Amino acid sequence: MDGIEYVGQEIYELANTIFPICRSITGEGVRQTLKILSDYVGRDGIGFTVYEVPSGTEVFDWKVPKEWIIRAAYIEDRQGNRIIDMKNNNLHVMGYSIPVDKWVGLDELRKHVYTLPKQPGVIPYVTSYYKERYGFCMSEEQLHSLEAGEYHMYIDSELIDGSMTFAEAVIPGETKEEIMFSSYTCHPSMANNECSGPVVLAALMRYVNSMKKRKYTYRFVLNPETIGSLTYISRNLEHLKKRLAAGIILSCVGDDMDYSIVETKYANTLADKSLKSVLETKQRLKIYSFLKRGSDERQYNAPGVELPVVGFSRTKYCEFPEYHTSADNMQLISPQGLQGSYEAMVQWIACMEKNEKYQVTVLGEPQLGKRGLFPTISKKGGYDGVRAMLNLIAYADGKNDLFDIARIIGVPPFELLPIVEKLLENGLIRGSLCF
Amino acid sequence: MDGIEYVGQEIYELANTIFPICRSITGEGVRQTLKILSDYVGRDGIGFTVYEVPSGTEVFDWKVPKEWIIRAAYIEDRQGNRIIDMKNNNLHVMGYSIPVDKWVGLDELRKHVYTLPKQPGVIPYVTSYYKERYGFCMSEEQLHSLEAGEYHMYIDSELIDGSMTFAEAVIPGETKEEIMFSSYTCHPSMANNECSGPVVLAALMRYVNSMKKRKYTYRFVLNPETIGSLTYISRNLEHLKKRLAAGIILSCVGDDMDYSIVETKYANTLADKSLKSVLETKQRLKIYSFLKRGSDERQYNAPGVELPVVGFSRTKYCEFPEYHTSADNMQLISPQGLQGSYEAMVQWIACMEKNEKYQVTVLGEPQLGKRGLFPTISKKGGYDGVRAMLNLIAYADGKNDLFDIARIIGVPPFELLPIVEKLLENGLIRGSLCF
Amino acid sequence: MDGIEYVGQEIYELANTIFPICRSITGEGVRQTLKILSDYVGRDGIGFTVYEVPSGTEVFDWKVPKEWIIRAAYIEDRQGNRIIDMKNNNLHVMGYSIPVDKWVGLDELRKHVYTLPKQPGVIPYVTSYYKERYGFCMSEEQLHSLEAGEYHMYIDSELIDGSMTFAEAVIPGETKEEIMFSSYTCHPSMANNECSGPVVLAALMRYVNSMKKRKYTYRFVLNPETIGSLTYISRNLEHLKKRLAAGIILSCVGDDMDYSIVETKYANTLADKSLKSVLETKQRLKIYSFLKRGSDERQYNAPGVELPVVGFSRTKYCEFPEYHTSADNMQLISPQGLQGSYEAMVQWIACMEKNEKYQVTVLGEPQLGKRGLFPTISKKGGYDGVRAMLNLIAYADGKNDLFDIARIIGVPPFELLPIVEKLLENGLIRGSLCF
Repeated sequence: MDGIEYVGQEIYELANTIFPICRSITGEGVRQTLKILSDYVGRDGIGFTVYEVPSGTEVFDWKVPKEWIIRAAYIEDRQGNRIIDMKNNNLHVMGYSIPVDKWVGLDELRKHVYTLPKQPGVIPYVTSYYKERYGFCMSEEQLHSLEAGEYHMYIDSELIDGSMTFAEAVIPGETKEEIMFSSYTCHPSMANNECSGPVVLAALMRYVNSMKKRKYTYRFVLNPETIGSLTYISRNLEHLKKRLAAGIILSCVGDDMDYSIVETKYANTLADKSLKSVLETKQRLKIYSFLKRGSDERQYNAPGVELPVVGFSRTKYCEFPEYHTSADNMQLISPQGLQGSYEAMVQWIACMEKNEKYQVTVLGEPQLGKRGLFPTISKKGGYDGVRAMLNLIAYADGKNDLFDIARIIGVPPFELLPIVEKLLENGLIRGSLCF
Repeated sequence: MDGIEYVGQEIYELANTIFPICRSITGEGVRQTLKILSDYVGRDGIGFTVYEVPSGTEVFDWKVPKEWIIRAAYIEDRQGNRIIDMKNNNLHVMGYSIPVDKWVGLDELRKHVYTLPKQPGVIPYVTSYYKERYGFCMSEEQLHSLEAGEYHMYIDSELIDGSMTFAEAVIPGETKEEIMFSSYTCHPSMANNECSGPVVLAALMRYVNSMKKRKYTYRFVLNPETIGSLTYISRNLEHLKKRLAAGIILSCVGDDMDYSIVETKYANTLADKSLKSVLETKQRLKIYSFLKRGSDERQYNAPGVELPVVGFSRTKYCEFPEYHTSADNMQLISPQGLQGSYEAMVQWIACMEKNEKYQVTVLGEPQLGKRGLFPTISKKGGYDGVRAMLNLIAYADGKNDLFDIARIIGVPPFELLPIVEKLLENGLIRGSLCF
Repeated sequence: MDGIEYVGQEIYELANTIFPICRSITGEGVRQTLKILSDYVGRDGIGFTVYEVPSGTEVFDWKVPKEWIIRAAYIEDRQGNRIIDMKNNNLHVMGYSIPVDKWVGLDELRKHVYTLPKQPGVIPYVTSYYKERYGFCMSEEQLHSLEAGEYHMYIDSELIDGSMTFAEAVIPGETKEEIMFSSYTCHPSMANNECSGPVVLAALMRYVNSMKKRKYTYRFVLNPETIGSLTYISRNLEHLKKRLAAGIILSCVGDDMDYSIVETKYANTLADKSLKSVLETKQRLKIYSFLKRGSDERQYNAPGVELPVVGFSRTKYCEFPEYHTSADNMQLISPQGLQGSYEAMVQWIACMEKNEKYQVTVLGEPQLGKRGLFPTISKKGGYDGVRAMLNLIAYADGKNDLFDIARIIGVPPFELLPIVEKLLENGLIRGSLCF
């Protein structure tokens, strides 16, 4: 897979643009973010369809919550010093805080302040979507440094009957069978989790649009986590059950360390097999069972839903200390890290596009020599260079798809692509689609 | 599983009561033993049905042997010293010895005396059920100490056309599907093998009777080994094939060391899966393949019989040096050991009773927060306490029973019972019986 | 398996007789070789049927090449010194060389000389069957020693419209199900690869003919590699698909080091299972996956052919340094090595002949004691000697064949043969053929 476009720098900058926005599962932050991403893909004449789902809409066992409007949040002391202010960091206000405007003593203040005692230098990310509360987040160190006295807790927010916003784009291919990428847009001001996922998704959308030929139809989804994906699934379940060949949740795809997969519930889908096959050459590949899930693969794999959707990360959420804190900032991710994710996904797409059950068209071994595919002199050690082709042919018996063959013969699937091309050109194999 | 009744002491005493009886595969010893066990369970108004099967009855490839009556057995010297006497230890007479009354020299005597040269201090347990012989057993040390001279071999026994005795009890449940416990009553004066099995079985019978609700019907069987179980199977094969969900042979369940399972022939039955699942938390669990069988799981798994019956032991027969010798005495077993077996079986029963294929009743993940089953504040590390519930839900897709889920999510099945209760109460899962 | 005839010396001498012949995939060398092997088996009144397939015959994706006639080949210098001459070693001429008669300088000569730089002391074996060339082979050392000057390249050969020769013999058994042995006759003057295969095959043919009773029909095939086997398969595919129970390619069976198996494509045939089972007791057993194939198991396992044919070798081709060089000479193989292969094959035949799915004829365990198959006194440790019989009975439930039972109970299949005999004699098991 030479010649994959270098997009790392431009999508790092895109991530940097959406980083400061105060997102939550509803509200203007989501809409602004989607606008910026739409502008990015819009260069190529493509775009997202944005949907608004009214507050109170019932979704399976859930209900779309009220829309959260947040205007200001701070704590100040009697001297007017702003102890914390969400102007400095969106994480200082607990997500979905109701309004408050109250002077309290330090002890009372503490009841509404969340810290991470084990990571005393960072601000934790805390939310309370489904129970009305207010709260502030700061570092344990800062809380510790506060002196006795009166403090002004101030949050200017509203929970209104508004709507929840999500976005979708579909790029059609030769067949109606689909590949889906999904990420989410509900996290405020954290870089890996989750500015990285949406920007890699946007870059992939441009890549897919640029492909000359597409066997699959591609679906790109940006949801608020959990309630968004539940809503999305509830509206598309029948279709996805029928058409979805494989889906990938992109989350924490911006650092440059591990490559990680979160398997489906039984680790037995084409999504599992294909993504593992493509990533197997990565030095720091980590395969997590579904017991280690945590992103929207939870909903896609839930009982009764059961769609072939895996999680893809660089270093997986929960596995890096900066996760869900203010330390998950733009220094944690890098152009290289984003590019690594992008390239892995492009390789995966290339392999999926060529994934068929191949069948040799002749009985016995084909005579490769007469087609220039094999040395015409037989001498010791002379076959090493064509070993992969011979092995691919041996297992191209109509039972195995590209990933099966790759596994059996121990060659990465993307290294098999040019061999498949040659054999197809020579009429020595034919493929049958395997959805 | 808190609050399992402590029965260790009372069943240790029960074992002590039946220990001195000279049992064999037929005869008064069996009947006396069954009488004592019946009295014990009789406190709760339950009891065994006792069957007599005439000598000579054909059972599959076998024939019920004559009934053995043993009145006395000793060797004495010219001075009238009793070298050995079964009054001191029942093992001194070979089981099923025919009568003898004869003075012989030491060389001739030796031909009829069995010892264990590798364990020179103990009396071995020897029988000859199907070929008429007489014989004595003593320690190698004692045999070695005998001086040349005349010895009087005396056995007052009879082989008569009598019967073989076995016992059965059935405690009905809500369904006709059955759980069976079986142990045996043919071993004379050895504690672990086999006073322990019958007394734990009796305690379990009282426990089952005390259950407020029973999904399963419970069957308790006390047989002479081999010929007894063959007879029992021959009379109940069709019924057991149809109804038996899982059975356990209790043997050597009185010491306080290992917990052992002897698997079925292919280790693929509910009995295997469930018992392993329940015992997996035991530190000294040993799982023996069917190649290491030796108790009546042999008959239950024989070709053509093939019932889901596993063996359960503390330290398994053949695996402790005292096995089949006079050293298998009341000091080898303990109230703690018996209680451990009892508790393991009660836990297993509890899990079996709740073993269903669970299915979540909503699509997508249920919203646990609104039911008070989940924290309403989302913060880092906040889900650890509910991880087992989330994982149980994820795999409650109608495909897995309780033991499957326990295995997949790595939580002991009995720890899942309260979670299952909560989810059932909240209507979030429903079970379908799996027999 | 006592009493296997010692044939090592006589077949070593047979190998020595065919060693000097200049074989190729066609031509007189093949015919002479087949004549000598026919004479050897002819002592017992059996023989091969020899077939000639005209040049140009289309075979699947291939075409039978012209017949190669080779009369002389040498290089000489201006002084008339023969630098190399195929009179000294057949490997000096590249197989299928077209004629040449030309004086050239050293640089030009080098273009037509093949050496093995990594093994400078030996002559490599090189062929060019399907592209017309001429060429010479010599040791790297010799090439290096040549001085500048004029050299006479001389090859007196012809490619004519002749035929390709192969041989077949069928020895019928009680059923039409077949066991096949195949080896090849196309290698010039190399001992292990491949004088050893044909001579062991010939010895096995005599052994099979001498068997008093044969369940299987036995097929023996001697082909030129690749094109020969393709031709053989093209003519017999339907029959082999229907009748072939298991086949073995014999190649490199003359050294006395490893025992090797090359598995079928999915390692899931009776041929794989049975041969592994029989060889499992060998200390130096090496099991190679199909990815390490190289002999005619390639054709038998090709997509669409897919016959249960494994490879058997002592040290496998490609795994010993002498392979495909002049160092693969009569010192590399030995009577002991050939005898080892012969014995392994005879053991395999014995097990295959007794391979049935056995089923116990009684319900429950049979009473072995009354048939003299079991001790009538029951005492500690008394069953060790009959453990294999008891275990065989336990798994003789109609589901397992001899090799399955051997694997499950951990006893080599040939050690089970006398036990099977005893149980059959006593009517305790019956077999059902499993093809």
